[in-house]
Amino acid sequence: MILVHLIVVLALIQFIVFGILVGRARGQYGVKAPATTGHEIFERYYRVQMNTLELLILLLPAMWIALSYLSPAWISLAGAIYLVGRVVYLRAYVKDPSKRAFGFGLSIMPINALLIAILVGVGMHYFNGVPI
Amino acid sequence: MILVHLIVVLALIQFIVFGILVGRARGQYGVKAPATTGHEIFERYYRVQMNTLELLILLLPAMWIALSYLSPAWISLAGAIYLVGRVVYLRAYVKDPSKRAFGFGLSIMPINALLIAILVGVGMHYFNGVPI
Amino acid sequence: MILVHLIVVLALIQFIVFGILVGRARGQYGVKAPATTGHEIFERYYRVQMNTLELLILLLPAMWIALSYLSPAWISLAGAIYLVGRVVYLRAYVKDPSKRAFGFGLSIMPINALLIAILVGVGMHYFNGVPI
Repeated sequence: MILVHLIVVLALIQFIVFGILVGRARGQYGVKAPATTGHEIFERYYRVQMNTLELLILLLPAMWIALSYLSPAWISLAGAIYLVGRVVYLRAYVKDPSKRAFGFGLSIMPINALLIAILVGVGMHYFNGVPI
Repeated sequence: MILVHLIVVLALIQFIVFGILVGRARGQYGVKAPATTGHEIFERYYRVQMNTLELLILLLPAMWIALSYLSPAWISLAGAIYLVGRVVYLRAYVKDPSKRAFGFGLSIMPINALLIAILVGVGMHYFNGVPI
Repeated sequence: MILVHLIVVLALIQFIVFGILVGRARGQYGVKAPATTGHEIFERYYRVQMNTLELLILLLPAMWIALSYLSPAWISLAGAIYLVGRVVYLRAYVKDPSKRAFGFGLSIMPINALLIAILVGVGMHYFNGVPI
């Protein structure tokens, strides 16, 4: 369980760092709040942060619920792959947004795997007569 | 509990599908990343996804905490109404954004109900002397 | 535990209120969906809501996991400071976006404190031989 906690905290810290990069890009490229457009490179950093937010809302509940069906080691592995995927995504997106697919796939793949594992677990519990 | 897990996973999969629709609309209407504007129909799909993100951050903790105060059957019913509400919202918004209110109401109503149930439950626990 | 539940529900209700303010600003300043730009004051309210979403995805899991390492009273205090910080942030941002730093700091500071407490807790558990 403490490994799962560690991975979740790392995912949250990574998201904070992505937010800091957006703030830095605001200054660097002269995009004043409340604007979120106006300079291509700023927009790339901003989209990386938003896309990461969209994945976190999937990853965190998936990791949490998976604890009822999978060992913490597998869940932590999924989270670790996500963390690496996000770094790949950030680097690719900022360099060239059209190259973002691989990093995105690498970070959503473990989320999909967790969701499938939960569905299988729910199905097995149901057929074994666990009360709904 | 497995029914609540199932409903949460369905809400997450629904959000992934909304994301896929945004990606498809990017290609269809020629809105290249990192832009999120440039074609009205793309923007409608994008706003549906963002609005769903805003509701998920409410729904998921509300369902989770409600487990301390409500039966899983009621919580699952709330989640199921949310799921239907989101489909209504998607269809209405993409057709005509000014018609989005009913689907929005249908998907936030069960969230409000869960929040009220938690507040009542917290209040009852407090007056029954449950330690804070 | 019921105090932590109460604080989480208050944070969710606060986010709903911020969403209502965005909706009201839509009407007031004539920004029709799906647009999220077009009037400076609307954009300020919208950015307050989005920034709050970015913090909620940090705060909620941090509060949850912290329950394994900290007393509910400390976690509730962190959440209460966050709530105040968000009100300060809203008022400052809508008045003048360049003055938003203090409110932002006040609302992310308790999140950072929770994350650090979790990291310390995980480390102590690990060195005390708690299985990962």
